[in-house]
Amino acid sequence: MIKAAVMGHGTVGSGVYEVFEMNAEKIARVAGQPVEVKYVLDLRDFSALPYADKFVTDFSVIENDPEIAVVAEVMGGVGAAYEFTKRCLQAGKSVCTSNKELVATRGEELLRIAEENGVGYMFEASVGGGIPIIRPMLQCLAANEINEICGILNGTTNYILTQMIHNGVTFEDALKQAQLNGYAEKDPTADIEGHDACRKICILSDLALGDKFDPDQVCCEGITKITLEDVANADKLGCVIKLLGRMVRNEDGTAYAYVAPHLIHKESPLAAVEDVFNAIMVNGNATGEVMFYGKGAGKLATASAVVADMLDCIEHRNNRRRILWGDGSKGLLRPLDTLQSAWYVRFKGKLADLEARLPVESAAEPAESVFVVKTHKLSTADMQARITALNACGEVRAAMRML
Amino acid sequence: MIKAAVMGHGTVGSGVYEVFEMNAEKIARVAGQPVEVKYVLDLRDFSALPYADKFVTDFSVIENDPEIAVVAEVMGGVGAAYEFTKRCLQAGKSVCTSNKELVATRGEELLRIAEENGVGYMFEASVGGGIPIIRPMLQCLAANEINEICGILNGTTNYILTQMIHNGVTFEDALKQAQLNGYAEKDPTADIEGHDACRKICILSDLALGDKFDPDQVCCEGITKITLEDVANADKLGCVIKLLGRMVRNEDGTAYAYVAPHLIHKESPLAAVEDVFNAIMVNGNATGEVMFYGKGAGKLATASAVVADMLDCIEHRNNRRRILWGDGSKGLLRPLDTLQSAWYVRFKGKLADLEARLPVESAAEPAESVFVVKTHKLSTADMQARITALNACGEVRAAMRML
Repeated sequence: MIKAAVMGHGTVGSGVYEVFEMNAEKIARVAGQPVEVKYVLDLRDFSALPYADKFVTDFSVIENDPEIAVVAEVMGGVGAAYEFTKRCLQAGKSVCTSNKELVATRGEELLRIAEENGVGYMFEASVGGGIPIIRPMLQCLAANEINEICGILNGTTNYILTQMIHNGVTFEDALKQAQLNGYAEKDPTADIEGHDACRKICILSDLALGDKFDPDQVCCEGITKITLEDVANADKLGCVIKLLGRMVRNEDGTAYAYVAPHLIHKESPLAAVEDVFNAIMVNGNATGEVMFYGKGAGKLATASAVVADMLDCIEHRNNRRRILWGDGSKGLLRPLDTLQSAWYVRFKGKLADLEARLPVESAAEPAESVFVVKTHKLSTADMQARITALNACGEVRAAMRML
Repeated sequence: MIKAAVMGHGTVGSGVYEVFEMNAEKIARVAGQPVEVKYVLDLRDFSALPYADKFVTDFSVIENDPEIAVVAEVMGGVGAAYEFTKRCLQAGKSVCTSNKELVATRGEELLRIAEENGVGYMFEASVGGGIPIIRPMLQCLAANEINEICGILNGTTNYILTQMIHNGVTFEDALKQAQLNGYAEKDPTADIEGHDACRKICILSDLALGDKFDPDQVCCEGITKITLEDVANADKLGCVIKLLGRMVRNEDGTAYAYVAPHLIHKESPLAAVEDVFNAIMVNGNATGEVMFYGKGAGKLATASAVVADMLDCIEHRNNRRRILWGDGSKGLLRPLDTLQSAWYVRFKGKLADLEARLPVESAAEPAESVFVVKTHKLSTADMQARITALNACGEVRAAMRML
């Protein structure tokens, strides 16, 4: 009998307990023996639960119990979660988590501590919830150089955009709806400003390129400025608007990484990803494009990914997987200035002014004196200079990359 | 320096060599040291190649070289490939393969021999080419019971169907086109009759349920009977026709497994999978539906999956993954008789006769005296009896499951 602990009894934490109960037989088959959750750490009162006797409020009970081989950290945040994770690893316990904020900001350090203590630190659930992505990228694509990662990494914003696209709901109303449905939090900032997607693309870039991509250094634009006008214009261009986290590797080994809304063609497999679903496209230099698709969040989905990592730690206790990345000192992140994109631009003013300042591929006038154009490829810096110039003779109301 | 051998220098075999060359740096990073292909086994003359000195024609050279730790079997077939794989495993060498026929028919025995000899037998490339599916299903979904697998598992037939759907090309012409493009072999039987997809759904079922699903026992229907009429009717019903390999697990642990063309709704993510692409949807009882998408074949894609397995064997030499399934004696495969489906039926005759013999949900008459209906759910046995009855008073020209 293997003993485990769960730190945090929120949505994912209670899901982890539920998965251990509901799939006990399958879990025992994989682990070669039953696995029991011995402790659940949470400060709140859960005395009404049938497993109330498992609850502890003192972390050191877990830390000091030599029976505990593996711990789920599903508390969230970077305070106590960081502290407890570190101490678990130092006490020789593997830790598995869904905490993308912690992995994105302190992953490198925690992986190093895990390595030093001969245990595992795993985080399949931190990107894409229950969608397998970390392990497939690391292992199945191990013989590939990863050239690009491009994903719909946040379910909340994808739900909002889907409402705007299919039901003509404004951003504000779609956000309210998402909150009512439990898809968005009371304070939705991390989702709608793209911070959540940013942490995820950083984790994937860390893994793909082997050095830390700092979420604070990665350009991040959310979906708050997108209007129904843009959605309708995108449709006319045969596109939909999606918030993408993207990493593009350059030949010299540096890479662009950023989060921004994009117009993507309706034929792209990513365009068909709707509601709270996530999808991540990975381009390997041998395997080409592969895509991973599923619900990017949800209690049992995310929890089952945490439990799968725990089983992996149990199975490979004496020969754990080596996952490490550098501290960011390789400086792989390249400023976006030089990244070339075609752009969608919505401009209020005169067409002649617009055409004098932009290499326009196609133009339309959906409303009087409002022009919508698709440009030829332009670098980010070039585009920014042109926007400044355009704002001197009119008003650039929207500018978005096209994929 | 780790030494490897490649058995077979056809499309995938030459791709394996190419991946080792092209991604040598990445491979060394993953393996912790460089990996060199020491031998390539093939009877044909490759003396013009720059690496002609690697070629051997005598298998025992590989078998008897203690330096060789891991071998790629990319010969195909179940004759020499079986013999050589077995002898490699017995000689303490891990074997990685893309050979679905061998895995589907002798996988259980070869995995057992690998286990007995403390080496690995891995086959990520045998399903979906370069698409990660085996490892994600085994590891990332380890905490899930797999309730259903449903996939477009064969690129050739999907290419043919895409031509029929989008370009109005007949089956015969689309097949010729596929042969011209190198997507179909001279003898296309294994693809168009569904045998290739059948081997793949058997492998996935073996893994998901832990006992052998024998391709010879699994019902398998190809796409040779599909007409442009059916394609047009499907379109009117909001569907497209796709050849699916499917496994459905019952509550008692038995499962249906089969290959057949289906009408699937256009909103389904599987409907958007076109040309030679593959996609596999896996439903886990905790994680819900996840989908894996990419090119299901292709030299470098398939080869890179074989190389990734080789790297896994190298990394985990002393703690290899335990993959085993039973010899089929659990009898998990349930006859299709009781599987319930809605059906698409094309019938020549009188509507009254049709309605008297089928629980029709909706009907149309696309041509005089030809009726197209969608039925309510009926078991396979029930449907077969009704087809017999219908053929007594008219002619059932097509009957296909709807998903």
